[in-house]
Amino acid sequence: MAGSSFGRIFRITTWGESHGPALGCVIDGCPAGIELSESDIQPYLDRRKPGNAAVATARKESDTAEILSGVFEGKTTGTPISVMIRNSDQHSNDYDDLKDIYRPGHADMTYDAKYGFRDHRGGGRSSGRETAARVIAGAVAAKVLKQLGITVEAYTRAIGPVEADLSEYSRSAVLANATAMPDVTANARALEYIADMKNKSDSCGGVMECIIKGVPAGVGDPVFDKLDALLAQAVMSIGAVKAVEIGDGTLAAASVGSKNNDQFKAGSKGRISKKSNHAGGILGGISDSSDIIVRASVKPTPSISRAQKTVNSSGENTEIEIHGRHDPVIVPRAVVVLESMCAVTVLDSLMYGATSRIDNLVGIYNK
Amino acid sequence: MAGSSFGRIFRITTWGESHGPALGCVIDGCPAGIELSESDIQPYLDRRKPGNAAVATARKESDTAEILSGVFEGKTTGTPISVMIRNSDQHSNDYDDLKDIYRPGHADMTYDAKYGFRDHRGGGRSSGRETAARVIAGAVAAKVLKQLGITVEAYTRAIGPVEADLSEYSRSAVLANATAMPDVTANARALEYIADMKNKSDSCGGVMECIIKGVPAGVGDPVFDKLDALLAQAVMSIGAVKAVEIGDGTLAAASVGSKNNDQFKAGSKGRISKKSNHAGGILGGISDSSDIIVRASVKPTPSISRAQKTVNSSGENTEIEIHGRHDPVIVPRAVVVLESMCAVTVLDSLMYGATSRIDNLVGIYNK
Amino acid sequence: MAGSSFGRIFRITTWGESHGPALGCVIDGCPAGIELSESDIQPYLDRRKPGNAAVATARKESDTAEILSGVFEGKTTGTPISVMIRNSDQHSNDYDDLKDIYRPGHADMTYDAKYGFRDHRGGGRSSGRETAARVIAGAVAAKVLKQLGITVEAYTRAIGPVEADLSEYSRSAVLANATAMPDVTANARALEYIADMKNKSDSCGGVMECIIKGVPAGVGDPVFDKLDALLAQAVMSIGAVKAVEIGDGTLAAASVGSKNNDQFKAGSKGRISKKSNHAGGILGGISDSSDIIVRASVKPTPSISRAQKTVNSSGENTEIEIHGRHDPVIVPRAVVVLESMCAVTVLDSLMYGATSRIDNLVGIYNK
Amino acid sequence: MAGSSFGRIFRITTWGESHGPALGCVIDGCPAGIELSESDIQPYLDRRKPGNAAVATARKESDTAEILSGVFEGKTTGTPISVMIRNSDQHSNDYDDLKDIYRPGHADMTYDAKYGFRDHRGGGRSSGRETAARVIAGAVAAKVLKQLGITVEAYTRAIGPVEADLSEYSRSAVLANATAMPDVTANARALEYIADMKNKSDSCGGVMECIIKGVPAGVGDPVFDKLDALLAQAVMSIGAVKAVEIGDGTLAAASVGSKNNDQFKAGSKGRISKKSNHAGGILGGISDSSDIIVRASVKPTPSISRAQKTVNSSGENTEIEIHGRHDPVIVPRAVVVLESMCAVTVLDSLMYGATSRIDNLVGIYNK
Repeated sequence: MAGSSFGRIFRITTWGESHGPALGCVIDGCPAGIELSESDIQPYLDRRKPGNAAVATARKESDTAEILSGVFEGKTTGTPISVMIRNSDQHSNDYDDLKDIYRPGHADMTYDAKYGFRDHRGGGRSSGRETAARVIAGAVAAKVLKQLGITVEAYTRAIGPVEADLSEYSRSAVLANATAMPDVTANARALEYIADMKNKSDSCGGVMECIIKGVPAGVGDPVFDKLDALLAQAVMSIGAVKAVEIGDGTLAAASVGSKNNDQFKAGSKGRISKKSNHAGGILGGISDSSDIIVRASVKPTPSISRAQKTVNSSGENTEIEIHGRHDPVIVPRAVVVLESMCAVTVLDSLMYGATSRIDNLVGIYNK
Repeated sequence: MAGSSFGRIFRITTWGESHGPALGCVIDGCPAGIELSESDIQPYLDRRKPGNAAVATARKESDTAEILSGVFEGKTTGTPISVMIRNSDQHSNDYDDLKDIYRPGHADMTYDAKYGFRDHRGGGRSSGRETAARVIAGAVAAKVLKQLGITVEAYTRAIGPVEADLSEYSRSAVLANATAMPDVTANARALEYIADMKNKSDSCGGVMECIIKGVPAGVGDPVFDKLDALLAQAVMSIGAVKAVEIGDGTLAAASVGSKNNDQFKAGSKGRISKKSNHAGGILGGISDSSDIIVRASVKPTPSISRAQKTVNSSGENTEIEIHGRHDPVIVPRAVVVLESMCAVTVLDSLMYGATSRIDNLVGIYNK
Repeated sequence: MAGSSFGRIFRITTWGESHGPALGCVIDGCPAGIELSESDIQPYLDRRKPGNAAVATARKESDTAEILSGVFEGKTTGTPISVMIRNSDQHSNDYDDLKDIYRPGHADMTYDAKYGFRDHRGGGRSSGRETAARVIAGAVAAKVLKQLGITVEAYTRAIGPVEADLSEYSRSAVLANATAMPDVTANARALEYIADMKNKSDSCGGVMECIIKGVPAGVGDPVFDKLDALLAQAVMSIGAVKAVEIGDGTLAAASVGSKNNDQFKAGSKGRISKKSNHAGGILGGISDSSDIIVRASVKPTPSISRAQKTVNSSGENTEIEIHGRHDPVIVPRAVVVLESMCAVTVLDSLMYGATSRIDNLVGIYNK
Repeated sequence: MAGSSFGRIFRITTWGESHGPALGCVIDGCPAGIELSESDIQPYLDRRKPGNAAVATARKESDTAEILSGVFEGKTTGTPISVMIRNSDQHSNDYDDLKDIYRPGHADMTYDAKYGFRDHRGGGRSSGRETAARVIAGAVAAKVLKQLGITVEAYTRAIGPVEADLSEYSRSAVLANATAMPDVTANARALEYIADMKNKSDSCGGVMECIIKGVPAGVGDPVFDKLDALLAQAVMSIGAVKAVEIGDGTLAAASVGSKNNDQFKAGSKGRISKKSNHAGGILGGISDSSDIIVRASVKPTPSISRAQKTVNSSGENTEIEIHGRHDPVIVPRAVVVLESMCAVTVLDSLMYGATSRIDNLVGIYNK
């Protein structure tokens, strides 16, 4: 039953419901000696925050993180880092109507089927709010990765039919644009599309992508803990994600070997590089030192304010119209969640595989 | 480092290299009381076998499974089931040329980077032969699932640009067709395409899909061990898979909420069903009793017999031409591997979540 | 590195330092439908509290538990239960002298060796305070076990050389006596012994024992997750425990087979019972339906207020005299910790083994 | 249900029954680059072999190990090492009488209770033969530890009431003596005692101890994966072990702080040592660089050839007399099993904690 932990050696455990008193994350296995404070975490939480009226809910989530353990005199101690966010602005009563009725596209029915019972307020544990805890872990993992020269950056690649122009990629645009798209033109068009959806009492989805740079070759543990396999679990576990792709992803299926194979070439300092990167930085489940590319398809927000057929918890047919505060698209806010899950996965794999050679083990303990 | 186990309560561990003495699987946690013999496993191995000269290697793999433990008087005892396949017909010398050279698209380089050393014969542990061990586990899991009324069936959905016509779906066609496609027309066209690839010294990929029927609502453990998340790990861990999709998958990203939401309706015997199944049978990471739909995109076989640029293990630029026995496409043989990984994942989740309600626990222990 | 989780399916994760802002426990995998509130947890925390000046520190620990998630309308939801205790009355400055010096018998030196750095205030993570989080988990596990008719009761069996008279066992005496001994006479003698130790600026240890009644035959998962093996891990992980025994424990080594074997006899309702219980309720790592008996030896409190030789963090010889608030013996307060770890372990094993027979699995999912 | 794996990063999985076709071990996570062949494993298996008519069964177990994977050109590759032993000399029919009757002190009854069914031949999975697979893993772990300057040595400390004189400790005596005791005098007396037991159709137990030298300070992961906690699990999981002690063990309970505390002193090369070692090399669950001392109490062999009361599988009272080949004491053969489990546990902890400091992680990946 326990399913709220991820990672083998850098292990995160999240807890909390949408409308309970608080939510949080315990990060166990973080190396000692990393400078860490709430100010490292807050920017990640802020990126997840509804910021722009056009794309997001009016719910005000201040989401202030409090570090409760694992940090002493500004540095990680190697013991569990517990971080908590108190919930506030909980319009729990908004959800009373939904107590006995199953929202299409939501997990109301399946939670009842599994547990015989559910916290119906705002989706409870199945709410997107749960991802705030993941973002905390991502901020910590990214801080550790930075010391290894590794960066993890995600962005919106598409909103509905509107695709970003990656040739115009700008990190500052990703952080500034309400859609988290990397170019200004697509951002504008996507905002129009979202506004249109909102007017139609409808919603849309999109595609987000994460690029991880600086991972040395050799990370990932065949055959079930391959780096791509764990990334797939990590990313598919984000609510609303329906597809995970590595590198060329689904396009690889229609390609041919002579094009899809990335030919190797001698790089600088004796390193090996590739002439292309269709593989997305992973060969045989192990990093190859190229950029790691992970892509996720996100379904349209299931909460829409038009009538839908459904059943109630007694199994009778009925109709539902969902009102209240709902994002017409969740992709812009989910981008930092993708980034966080990728950071956690890569760090866990780096640490777990650190002793893959006897030389490494001897180097650490026989110095 | 240990990465060769999958599952939490029904746990499989695979071992073995392409050209070592043997390979196998230990299945730990299989419920006691299941009738099991080698004859349950052999048909799965046979489906993985190269059967048709048009689509597969000439390597003769008899792949005879031997059950070494965990079965007594024809029934599982609840203790680890160890199954082994002796390797034979090993043209190990075919690979001597590849000892110091990295094949593009293969894991030669990354294994060396990780372990400082590799078994270069036929890819060693990174070979597709490793999946024979997964198929053993899949056969056992499928046998258990059958007693719960659950069936798991995979097939080829596309070979390169050739797509199957699912309206013509026939299970017997899947098992009879050399491509494992469910319809005869697409099979014929795909065989032509494959032959063309072979003539051009090239290779192709494809798409495979698995349908799991009969899973009751309530299976899957939020938030990281969601059923779709574990399926994603399981399927992405199959060599050559570059994308995993659930239900509508990547198409969901361009859909709208009013279409993508599956509206509920009252079903027979108080059960709840859905008017559509865009979700692919999983909501919030938990099964909803609809068919579970998993799709995987497979890259083109990396071994092609035309010249490719690469580097050797000293990091120097060179060229390679790969000869020997290689499938121009691996999809037809990988279909049973997808089916196997889905069966293992669903059974593990069913068992792991069996005590999600106190009533279930009381029912088992207080009878 | 991550080592703060225990359990496979009912999994607890503890966090928090002695003098940080808070400590707590996340309980993941608790079955849904259990009535639970802070009032179930508080009595366990109170038993851990220093209550009697004779045996314990003057530190005032109110230890008020707050449930932050996983409970809705008074019942567990099946999602992670997060419980937190805010620290208070932290005389952190008391420990400034100990910043650069290693207390004998404590973990100061080993934490520095492992992490290169430590939270020196009151032992940080290595403090006995960490066990408050375990007690939270124990209270929850005991509540679940009660519904299965299982009780878990621990008590002090010896303080230094003073042994309890088990023939006078009374549960109310255990709860009332300052030593947590089950008889009044031994309690009085033990209190004298402890007072004597205190006067001598010395400390003592003792033995505690736990009896688990009502566990049906069949719980425990060979060969490494045997019930006794997991109990041994759980109990040895309690700070200051130096030995774990099951049933006759060390005495079994000097016994003979004809005496040590527990002969079986037909019991009521077709059940099988035993004529004796040298085995302590576990055969081959699996419960046999007799009382499960677990015993732990606890070393003397390492903090004593007499001069001891030691080294500082620069590796130089020095002396230390530890003042402040320290228990001359920790056994009375550790009894509820033993009880808690046993409850958690038994529940985890009950849940994990619930599907050991195909009939059980069919019973749950095919109803 | 799955319980046959141990270790988090150096993970072993054992399989096989006493009278099945074979048994074995899969070692996953062994660092690459270790020279390894069957000749490293055989001496460990030979020590487990019945060698002396006085102390052991007449069953002839050749126990020849075959490495099936994970080793290439004489060195470990980092992939799973599968090792198998074919069973031979199986007098399975000897056990037909025991099919429906429960032997006192054995796991017959509990296996039936758990699984509803059992392989009754020689105890099946609950047989001591299962430990042969552990010894394979121990041999591999010891080989790795040797490269880190760590040695693991176990011996018999007592047989029934006969205690060894440790002041006369000689490793060659341990390996030469039929009892695996470290001194000649005690060995002789113990053999007499065993002969006496045999004559009386009775059996005896004993105490075994393991000393691990050379483990650097800093190994072990608080709070549940403490080194002593994992050693306790590992050792208690060995069949017939009823108590596990670290350092002074049960004696610590009656000691006082001023004696039990090991005072620190400055050692050579800036290292810290201790004036005594009551702690047995572990403080706060982390190694302190002193010798690690683990002790296990073993119950008398349950198989004795005198009449015992018991029940049959229908729950009816009956009597049993066990004939056939049985050791009057298993301690001498179990010593190498203790040694093996200690080696596996220490190596797993060394590897798992290798990245406890950010400096170590940077050292490995940023070179």
